Amino acid sequence: MIIDSLDAPLPGSSLLPTPGGDVYTDPETFRLEQQNIFETMWNCVLRVDSLASAGQWKRVTVGREELIVVRTRKAGIQAYYNVCRHRGMRVCTTDEGKSRTLKCGYHAWTYALEGELVAAPNLTSMPDVDRQEYGLKPVHVREWLGYVWVCLADEPPSFEETVLGEVRTRFGEVQSIDNYGIENLKLGESKTYEVEANWKLIIENFMECYHCATIHPELTEVIPEFADGLASQRKNGEIHGASFGSDIEGFTVDGSSGVAELPAIAPGQERKYYAITVKPQMFINTVPDHVIIHRMFPQSESKTIVVCDWLFLPEVVEQDMDISKSVELFHRVNQQDFEACELTQPSMSSKAYTRGGALVPSEHHIEEFHQWWHETMGYRQQPAATDSPVKASADAVIAEQ
Amino acid sequence: MIIDSLDAPLPGSSLLPTPGGDVYTDPETFRLEQQNIFETMWNCVLRVDSLASAGQWKRVTVGREELIVVRTRKAGIQAYYNVCRHRGMRVCTTDEGKSRTLKCGYHAWTYALEGELVAAPNLTSMPDVDRQEYGLKPVHVREWLGYVWVCLADEPPSFEETVLGEVRTRFGEVQSIDNYGIENLKLGESKTYEVEANWKLIIENFMECYHCATIHPELTEVIPEFADGLASQRKNGEIHGASFGSDIEGFTVDGSSGVAELPAIAPGQERKYYAITVKPQMFINTVPDHVIIHRMFPQSESKTIVVCDWLFLPEVVEQDMDISKSVELFHRVNQQDFEACELTQPSMSSKAYTRGGALVPSEHHIEEFHQWWHETMGYRQQPAATDSPVKASADAVIAEQ
Amino acid sequence: MIIDSLDAPLPGSSLLPTPGGDVYTDPETFRLEQQNIFETMWNCVLRVDSLASAGQWKRVTVGREELIVVRTRKAGIQAYYNVCRHRGMRVCTTDEGKSRTLKCGYHAWTYALEGELVAAPNLTSMPDVDRQEYGLKPVHVREWLGYVWVCLADEPPSFEETVLGEVRTRFGEVQSIDNYGIENLKLGESKTYEVEANWKLIIENFMECYHCATIHPELTEVIPEFADGLASQRKNGEIHGASFGSDIEGFTVDGSSGVAELPAIAPGQERKYYAITVKPQMFINTVPDHVIIHRMFPQSESKTIVVCDWLFLPEVVEQDMDISKSVELFHRVNQQDFEACELTQPSMSSKAYTRGGALVPSEHHIEEFHQWWHETMGYRQQPAATDSPVKASADAVIAEQ
Repeated sequence: MIIDSLDAPLPGSSLLPTPGGDVYTDPETFRLEQQNIFETMWNCVLRVDSLASAGQWKRVTVGREELIVVRTRKAGIQAYYNVCRHRGMRVCTTDEGKSRTLKCGYHAWTYALEGELVAAPNLTSMPDVDRQEYGLKPVHVREWLGYVWVCLADEPPSFEETVLGEVRTRFGEVQSIDNYGIENLKLGESKTYEVEANWKLIIENFMECYHCATIHPELTEVIPEFADGLASQRKNGEIHGASFGSDIEGFTVDGSSGVAELPAIAPGQERKYYAITVKPQMFINTVPDHVIIHRMFPQSESKTIVVCDWLFLPEVVEQDMDISKSVELFHRVNQQDFEACELTQPSMSSKAYTRGGALVPSEHHIEEFHQWWHETMGYRQQPAATDSPVKASADAVIAEQ
Repeated sequence: MIIDSLDAPLPGSSLLPTPGGDVYTDPETFRLEQQNIFETMWNCVLRVDSLASAGQWKRVTVGREELIVVRTRKAGIQAYYNVCRHRGMRVCTTDEGKSRTLKCGYHAWTYALEGELVAAPNLTSMPDVDRQEYGLKPVHVREWLGYVWVCLADEPPSFEETVLGEVRTRFGEVQSIDNYGIENLKLGESKTYEVEANWKLIIENFMECYHCATIHPELTEVIPEFADGLASQRKNGEIHGASFGSDIEGFTVDGSSGVAELPAIAPGQERKYYAITVKPQMFINTVPDHVIIHRMFPQSESKTIVVCDWLFLPEVVEQDMDISKSVELFHRVNQQDFEACELTQPSMSSKAYTRGGALVPSEHHIEEFHQWWHETMGYRQQPAATDSPVKASADAVIAEQ
Repeated sequence: MIIDSLDAPLPGSSLLPTPGGDVYTDPETFRLEQQNIFETMWNCVLRVDSLASAGQWKRVTVGREELIVVRTRKAGIQAYYNVCRHRGMRVCTTDEGKSRTLKCGYHAWTYALEGELVAAPNLTSMPDVDRQEYGLKPVHVREWLGYVWVCLADEPPSFEETVLGEVRTRFGEVQSIDNYGIENLKLGESKTYEVEANWKLIIENFMECYHCATIHPELTEVIPEFADGLASQRKNGEIHGASFGSDIEGFTVDGSSGVAELPAIAPGQERKYYAITVKPQMFINTVPDHVIIHRMFPQSESKTIVVCDWLFLPEVVEQDMDISKSVELFHRVNQQDFEACELTQPSMSSKAYTRGGALVPSEHHIEEFHQWWHETMGYRQQPAATDSPVKASADAVIAEQ
């Protein structure tokens, strides 16, 4: 694997290096990503309000593991490996359901919603079998933004430092995202995309807007500054959001007005779009009247399922207001982005991409992602930022981005 | 591979350990199973009477090899690799046929039914080419129970010790199975199942009845003792068969009477079901009026083809008597069992099953199967039974099973 | 891998050895073949006249690489890796097209037909980015016989020694093939075959006619000497072409007359068929009124795409003369040959073919191909021909072939 290509200065010194293509195509690298990233970090998996009452459960996949997420009677939402402790059969065999217990259909080993083994044929004749010891194997659970987050690690990383840290890096504090009241919004629409591309290409695509002028005509109509290729997070030291065009009424496919505005957004956020990448698998997009959340579920080194939710105020959803123009805008953006990723994936195995490609200065966020990836995969320590001539050169060029 | 998990005592000492899940999912383990088990042991491949006259042949697959099984003129049934000795083309290219010779369709190298090379273009100008040396490569063949058995090993294991040994272990002697006169029965029905599960899960499922109450409503109606979860082979030191319920007339899907009883079954067998596992790939099920034979053909670590034959007295088949209710009972059992295996297979790769699950005492036959597998794969010697505290503990619990 | 089986004398000393079957089934061997053969040697990829005017381009696959072949304005036909130098996306995303530049659809990096980077968003603010350095990565290109040939090696092997060398080996000089004026012929028909067999089986099949009597009834009707199993290249020291039967009027499926004869063919070529294998992936077949060209594109160790072109005089194609009987003859030969290869491929993994099969003396060309393969793969040096007792023995037998 060419994991050191990031250190090689490029002949055009305005340009930043990228990893070699094999990090996007090697099955063993993907296996290590599942182990060291998706099965180690916090994953955003489903909407809290989709499990409304005790006994409701859903199956989700995190890394290579199938889990049951269930609303219990006594302990809120919990999550377990969907593996019976007796012979291993899947305990839940449909995508969702509601039941008083979780009962395996093979030998009728039966678990409380809270996980412990409560019944099994002849169990009373085996008094030494501990009901907790043979309960369903749990995973760590958190709730934030109205989503259930799970972590498969025995010792999860700090939610505050990792997940909330991404928000602080973007906004300086978490309050800015809290203003949108995402935990109280309702799901207006959800679409699932099967993308034939490595998950990292999808993240990299989300991190830059150098491609916006080429592939996103509707988006650049609504947000003209994106046509300049910048996805700036700061300007003159201030948090920067991307402004709607002067003749644009709302974040919709044709610029017409959207639906009811979220009540608590801060002054200055009324005509702005903000985006945050919450590594490794969630994106947040906020506009004044709705929030768009992407969750990624990597399937293989060349396939990723992306689920995109459009969230609105409860009354918008309950009164069945027309959200189609709002949904259509980012649905098109998704289709445009994922097609680009799918046309990039096959080149990743080319001899012509063995040492990678190049990043223009406005794509420098991607270089930070590559540094994070290398560290998280354990390939090396992050170099001190100030010591990197490549980075310093990039910083000069992108001073205002 | 966690092949030592069998040695780890479980926290609930009533319970017995199982191998880690990877023995059901690792492609390299499956390759070694093909090599050390299916291509080394005797395999039950097809019904003798399906090759009624000289020149009739069928293709079968054993391990990773395609064979021709043919009734010769002078040497009974023989079997060969389906590989021309010249350039390797498949000699037989359909599933069955009848011919005076076995002729390769590429360059017309032609073999006698008995295997030797008898003709080829320009062969007479190559007098040094030995007709036996360049004959079809043979494999070992036996007949038993009206089936053809083949073994790919150069030196086959003793048929008497391995195949017949399974019957002796079950019944004390081979006579009990001979009573059913299986070699003279006729095929009433045959069904083929493509099961998305490792072959060992199918054997383990067949070896225990702890699941019967949960997934086999028809079977436990006919044989009520199966609802207790026991598949006992001995009771008070005597060979034990499972008895039909008192209101049951026959081994049929609704308990109605079956067809003509097999004439030579022993006193006490008239209302009994017996099952025998003939490792590695055959099951025998006997009831008073028919016999059900399963043959397994493993395709990959997660796929197994199972062929199930229902055999009856010749007059039943020849007079076209209604066997549908007899066939339907075990066809449902098969479907129920194979669905359970398919819902177990995906959990085998879960982190929650890395060290395996647990066996209840009535599933102790499965532990013996695991011991056999470990020995046959060459992973270790069988521990002396009396030295095993786990096993002793299990024996105490299951004394009457 | 049994790569030494070629050295083992066979029990029938008339027979020649072959490699063990695994060279046809091992994915790693196939990977090395892609690297050491298809991505190192010259490949015949498409018809020159299919790129008639400047700006026309087509995508082709060579080895594991996708290329763009384009007619430039200033530099004739050129070929590039279809990989944008920025982030790697496929620059051309359809199979063919015509355009003034080659523009990547992701971030609009734009390349001249001659390859250099000519435009990109914000490129003017990155003056240090060299337009040639970041041009499309080129591969070597040649034209011969009216076909574009490409080579991915940094230092290509000599076209004269390798490609033209095959013609000299067959005919003693290149003029004999030049007589057919293939570069001026037009495509009358092209057929694509997906063959489920290793590419080497297809070459071996093409190199011998021992199978012709068995599988090619139409071909042996037209060329009776093929029924004897010989595909001789020399007779009494003279170049040998295979003669049409005395009652045959043309190289057509029913022996009826063909179309207008090629004007410059030499005396004695009027009623002859010649075949040449241009390793590693092209076959030439010449008859008096047309030329048949096969190009192979290996996909995996067990799958090969073969494209077959039938070429005629321009007036034949332009006046839409009936070529169906000419095309049908070799189309049937192709189907017959590829079916044989597909029925040979699965045996290559059999234990019965571990040390390979045998070649009869008239198949000795195949042994030379195996020697070439071993050398080209770097497995060993070619043994001096006169020192090989096996070869000497073969030579004696085939003296007149």
